[in-house]
This record gives sequence, C-alpha cells and structure tokens, in this order.
Amino acid sequence: MMDGNVIASLQNPRVKAVVALQQKSAERRKRGLMVVEGVRELLHCMEGGFEVERLYFCPSLCADREDWVRCMEAVPADRRVEVTEAVYAKMAYRGGTEGMVAEVKVRLCGLDDLTLGDAPLIVVLEGVEKPGNLGAVLRSADAAGVDAVVVCDPRTDLFNPNLIRSSIGAVFTVPCVACTSGECIDFLKARGIRILTAQLQDSRFYYDTDMRGGTAIVMGTEATGLTEQWRQVADAHIKIPMLGRLDSLNVSVSAAILLYEAVRQRQV
Amino acid sequence: MMDGNVIASLQNPRVKAVVALQQKSAERRKRGLMVVEGVRELLHCMEGGFEVERLYFCPSLCADREDWVRCMEAVPADRRVEVTEAVYAKMAYRGGTEGMVAEVKVRLCGLDDLTLGDAPLIVVLEGVEKPGNLGAVLRSADAAGVDAVVVCDPRTDLFNPNLIRSSIGAVFTVPCVACTSGECIDFLKARGIRILTAQLQDSRFYYDTDMRGGTAIVMGTEATGLTEQWRQVADAHIKIPMLGRLDSLNVSVSAAILLYEAVRQRQV
Repeated sequence: MMDGNVIASLQNPRVKAVVALQQKSAERRKRGLMVVEGVRELLHCMEGGFEVERLYFCPSLCADREDWVRCMEAVPADRRVEVTEAVYAKMAYRGGTEGMVAEVKVRLCGLDDLTLGDAPLIVVLEGVEKPGNLGAVLRSADAAGVDAVVVCDPRTDLFNPNLIRSSIGAVFTVPCVACTSGECIDFLKARGIRILTAQLQDSRFYYDTDMRGGTAIVMGTEATGLTEQWRQVADAHIKIPMLGRLDSLNVSVSAAILLYEAVRQRQV
Repeated sequence: MMDGNVIASLQNPRVKAVVALQQKSAERRKRGLMVVEGVRELLHCMEGGFEVERLYFCPSLCADREDWVRCMEAVPADRRVEVTEAVYAKMAYRGGTEGMVAEVKVRLCGLDDLTLGDAPLIVVLEGVEKPGNLGAVLRSADAAGVDAVVVCDPRTDLFNPNLIRSSIGAVFTVPCVACTSGECIDFLKARGIRILTAQLQDSRFYYDTDMRGGTAIVMGTEATGLTEQWRQVADAHIKIPMLGRLDSLNVSVSAAILLYEAVRQRQV
C-alpha cells in the first residue's frame, strides 16, 4: 500500500472502509476517523493540526498542481495510496474534489481546551439538526473571526461529510466544541461572558445591544427556536428585524448578521 | 380536467408538460409559464399577484389543512386538477411540497415598472450563475425589506425551480428585474442612487460607508467578482473584513451582512 501500488479494485477492503466512514457516524465513532475530501479542505484540515491517517489520491483528477503538491508533501509517503479514477469515484462523496480523499483522525475539543482572549466572541448552536446548516454557520463564524463555536446537544456529529463540505473546511479552522447546554452555560457564566439569545419574543433589535465585551450569541433551530433554559439565563434577548413577507432567515445568514455586528462594534 | 376528474396516468400529456417546464428554461420561455411547488411558495406567489394557469393537487399529501384550503380557494375550480400520488411524485421536483404543484404565468418586470421610495435600497447581482445562490440572496433581500433585486446579464432565468425553491418564495415577494449592466447603471445614475460595489481591491469596510440615502449594493460572482464597468461607476468600493482562515463568504451571506448594515443605519 506504499507509493507505487495502485488500488484498482472496487472490492478492495480499503475502499469499503472509506465508504463506511462516509456513510455511518457509528463507524466514525468506532474508528475515531473521519473522511475529508478535496484539496482545499485537506489543506485547511492539516493547517488545523489534524493528522492524516491515509491519503488516497488519483493523479489524473488533479486540477491545481500547486495545492496538490502541498497536500502530497504534507503526508508521509507510507500513508499515501494511489487509486484509479473508478475507485476514487466510489470513495468520494461528491464530485469536483480534485482527486484527493483522506482518512483523518477525529480530534474532539472540550470547553476547557479553548483558548479565549479578553473579549471572546463565541457562537452557540443548540440542537441544530442539519449538518449542512451547521457547516454554513461555521463558514460564517470563520469569516467573523470567532474564538469558538459550541454545539450544544448536537443531533449530528461534527465530522459528517455534509458538514465538512458545507463548511468548506471551516470545521478545521474554527475551534469547535460539542457539549450539553448545561455545561456551556456554566462555562460562560464562570467567565463572565454575556449570553445573547436570538429569539423573537421579548427581544430588542440586535444592533441596540452592546457586543464589545465577551459575548456568546446563542441560536436554536429554525423550526423550534431555543429551549427555555437558554432564555432564562440570557443577559439579553436579541432579534433581527424581518422587513419582508417571509418569516425567517437561514441560520447561517442570521449568524453572520449577528456576528458581524459584533465585529463592527469592536472595530468602529 | 375539472374538479372530480383525477389524472392517474404517468403518460398523461399534462404530466409531461409539467416535467418539461421544470427541466427546460426554453420551454418556460416558449410557453410563458413556470412551475411552482409547495403550498407556502404558492401562497407567496398568489400574494405577489402571479396568475395560476393550472393547479395540480393530491389531497392525500396535504399536511397543513388551513394553508391548503387557502390555496385551493384562491384558484378557480376549472383550473384545479386532482392527481394521484404517483403522478404528483413525477410532476414534483422535490419532496415535502405537500401535494400542490402549479403552472403559473411568468411575469417579467422591467426597471421602469419599479416603484421606489425616497431612499431606495436595491441589490444588484451581476452574472450570478447558480440558481440556488440567487434564490438565497432573494431570501436575504426579502428579510431586509429591499425595494428591488436587479439581476444583470443573468446566466439563469428567474423562474428556475432551484431558484424558486431556495428563495422559499421570495422571488414572488421581492420585485425582481433582469436587464443588462448598462441599463441598470443608467437607471441608478439617473435617479441619484449611490452605487456601492462589493470588491476587495481599493475598498473600505462596509460599515464605514453611509447607506442612509438611496443605495444600490452591487455584487459579482464568488469566482470572478464584478466587471470593470461596475467598478468604474461606483460611488464607493466596499468590503467585508475577513478575519478567519478561509477567504470567502457565500453570496447570500455577504448580501445579508451588507443589507442589514443599511437597515441598521436607517433605524438607529
């Protein structure tokens, strides 16, 4: 399985192992591995300090030579395995990933592992069930330079292929923690970080709220909103004015609007 | 084809006609019709004054009785046609649309049809090629209460099923115009509406820009940005600070951040 040997058979057990990791969260938990596809995503992943267990590559699908070489050089030779186009197509979850897919070691970060500055900016998501939504929030969170994203009582694992894809790698560049809502509330309260809950009832417009100090912006699901425990511990309830005919924004869009208000207040 | 007759055959020419409208923009142009799926989308569509040519409904798929009845009552009886579940599944582009799909007359709005207030807020999108992205921008634009969305030199038609879906009906509630960039520039200049182009080079942060007067926020594609003609006529170049490791935001997220800054400035 060193450089030079090429996997050409769709029946190869390694192919089946990658497919199982793509499809089953139980398999990811059991093996402590996830699958990362795409050159750009892999580069973010390795920059974030994640360890590649095995890199499968298909040279004929290479699109950007420079990034490709950077990826190859970052992985020891005995962990690189060449595959044919047909094998790659079977292993890969989606198209356009430029011929690189890897098994990567899962690294779970706890609240106590977070390194926070003086006035941290944190996003908390409660019970988000769609991996694609969570990934999109991570992308917004990366752009706004948050200190951490905390996912409370998650109904998806952080290393779901859809989540990695929609985050375009932000799941590796933003510190992410999964924990219970109770743990998160204790953590924020102990550090004096203000809890701002996004909710429609009893709330003020987000831009009338001071976000210059340590701030956690807490959001629930589009369908059911936040649970009562978050509403009760909140330092302020905030909402985005809805000025049109529809009644909701996508959660990643809402997150971006709220986070960039914090960015604005801190920079103006 | 009146109430009481039920289409049960997948070979029925009406079924094929709906499928062709879903799949082919040339067919939509030729017949002047589009397909709208989903109870919520249809309600927005009819509220927006669009005319339903024919409503296909499948009672056993009805989920929300009240909205369903509102939809049924808004369409004359001789334009309603019952279909079986199998026929519905063939006509519908996606699941979960609650048993209603309709052929609706396309209505194209021109720049001169727009009704603008004293300080209009307009989004201009140049060359956006993905219908899903355009739909998502429309959803953000609806929420921010814009006066219009202008799509310049579009590479998709406004009534693509993916666009309707991702806009969750905002394409019917927000005034949308398709035209050339030149036409749009002339229109904005003639009305003294300030042109703010979203671009990275030679730009200032968006929150340092006055958006309280008539404002057009102009955005290009994620891949190539705006063309030179827009950059040259701009009153200001604006950018969103990117504080993370990734280098871009989704266009609907960027649009929301910029539009809500205008909302904030106008309300604070």
